[in-house]
Amino acid sequence: MRITIIGSGNVATHLAAAFKNAGHRIVQVYSRDMQNAALLAYHVKAEPIDNLSQIDSETDIFIISIKDDAIGLVAEQLAPYQKLMVHTSGATDLYALLAFSDNVGVFYPLQTFSKAKDVNFRTVPLCIEAADQAIAKGLKELAHTISNSVNDIDSPQRKTLHLAAVLACNFPNYLYSIAQQILAKHDLSFDLIRPLILETAEKVQNSLPASVQTGPAVRNDETTMNNHLQLLQDNPDLQQLYTLLSQGIIKMGINPHGDK
Amino acid sequence: MRITIIGSGNVATHLAAAFKNAGHRIVQVYSRDMQNAALLAYHVKAEPIDNLSQIDSETDIFIISIKDDAIGLVAEQLAPYQKLMVHTSGATDLYALLAFSDNVGVFYPLQTFSKAKDVNFRTVPLCIEAADQAIAKGLKELAHTISNSVNDIDSPQRKTLHLAAVLACNFPNYLYSIAQQILAKHDLSFDLIRPLILETAEKVQNSLPASVQTGPAVRNDETTMNNHLQLLQDNPDLQQLYTLLSQGIIKMGINPHGDK
Repeated sequence: MRITIIGSGNVATHLAAAFKNAGHRIVQVYSRDMQNAALLAYHVKAEPIDNLSQIDSETDIFIISIKDDAIGLVAEQLAPYQKLMVHTSGATDLYALLAFSDNVGVFYPLQTFSKAKDVNFRTVPLCIEAADQAIAKGLKELAHTISNSVNDIDSPQRKTLHLAAVLACNFPNYLYSIAQQILAKHDLSFDLIRPLILETAEKVQNSLPASVQTGPAVRNDETTMNNHLQLLQDNPDLQQLYTLLSQGIIKMGINPHGDK
Repeated sequence: MRITIIGSGNVATHLAAAFKNAGHRIVQVYSRDMQNAALLAYHVKAEPIDNLSQIDSETDIFIISIKDDAIGLVAEQLAPYQKLMVHTSGATDLYALLAFSDNVGVFYPLQTFSKAKDVNFRTVPLCIEAADQAIAKGLKELAHTISNSVNDIDSPQRKTLHLAAVLACNFPNYLYSIAQQILAKHDLSFDLIRPLILETAEKVQNSLPASVQTGPAVRNDETTMNNHLQLLQDNPDLQQLYTLLSQGIIKMGINPHGDK
C-alpha cells in the first residue's frame, strides 16, 4: 500500500518502519517540525513535509499518529482528500474521525515505544476498528502484514484496554523509578533489581498475576510492612502509596500463604 | 560443599537445585511437613527430615530458608552444632542469627521464585553478609559457584533492597492483576497486554525508568486521566490509587513532552 504517516513521534516512527519493512511504500511523513519529519522520512525513504497543504493525494491511507487533542483538527484538514484515514490512539474514540468522513478507522498498536529501542512488531497486538465491515477487512489485511496479533476492538473496549495499559505499563514503570531512586539514595545499583523486574514480567506471560503474587502484603507480614513504612518516613506520599497498594494486595487474599 | 537446607519453600527449592547443579552435596532437607521435605529432597538426592533432632552434623553449612519470624527459633536449635549458619531473608537482620552464634551470615537471592517456573540462577544477584571477613570470603566463593552476581550487602542495605524489590516486583504484579481483572470484566483477553508488560520490563534493563516513562500522566493529559477515573467509578480504592500514582508521575516532570 501507499501510506502517508502524519506524525513523527514514537508510534509514528515504529509503525512507519514496520510498514516499510513489510514492503509498503511510505509516501510522505508529516510533522510540524521539519527536522523531525526529515529524520523519520529519511529512514523510510519518504518525502518529509511540515505543512498539510503539501500533502500528496497519491496515497491509499493517512495514518494519523499525533497528540490526541490534535487528531480532530488534522482529520478535518485531511478529509477533503477522501482517502482512508485512521488514528493510532488508545484513548480516542472513532468518532473523532467519523465527524469528518465515513472512510475512517482506528489502528491502535498496544505497546510502549521508545525511539531508542527496537520492538519486534510481529508480537505487538494491533487493535482495529472501522466505520464499516469493508474498511475493517482492509485494515486487518494491512495489520497482518506487520503483526501476528490483529484484534477487533471497538471504541469502548479500546478505552478499557488503554486504562489497563496504563495500569500494567506506565504505573509499574513509575514504581521502578521510585525503587531506583531509593536505591541510588543508598548508593545501591539499580542493576541489583533489574533481573527481578524482568522475571516479574516474564512470570505473567504464562500465568495470571494473582496466582504468582508474592511479597509481605500477600503474606500479611505486618512486621516487614511496618519496617518498610519506617524506611519511607521522610516521604508521606510514598507511605500512602505503599499502604494503599499493600491493602489492595491483602484484600486479594488469593494466596494467603504467600510464596516469597 | 556439604549443604543442609532448612525449609522447602520457593527460595529453598531453587537454591537447593542451583547448589546441586553446581556440584555441591545436599545432605538433608528439613521441613515441618515431611511430604514437602521429601519432595525437595528427592529432587536434590538428599535425606528428608521433619524434626530438627534428626539433623546430620556431618555438614558444612545450614541454609535457613523459612518464614522470617521462625528464623530465630530454628537458629537457636541449630547453634549447638557449631556449623556455619546463614539465612536467606531480605527483611531479616544478621542479628537474628548473631544472637546465637558467631559463625553466621546472610545469603539473600534477590529474585522472585515460583516453583512452577525455572530461573537462570547465574543472573540472580546474591547479597552476602557475614559475621566476619573470613566467613564472608567463604560465602562469596560458594555464591560464585551458582551466580555471576555476588554482592556485599549489609543489613541496612538489604532492608532498602527488600523495599525496592517490593516496589519493583510485588506492586507491579498487583497492578498487572488489577489490569487483568478489568480486562476480564469487559471480556478482553489478558494476552492483549502481555507483550506490553514484558516490553516495559525489558526497556529498563538498559535505561533508567524515569527516562522511559510514558502515558497520560507524564504528558499531564487531563482528559485521558479523567476518562480513566470515570471508568473506575465503581471502585473508589482504585480511583484513589490511580490518582496517587498519576500525581507521582506528574511530579516526576522529567519528560514533560511524554512519549507515547
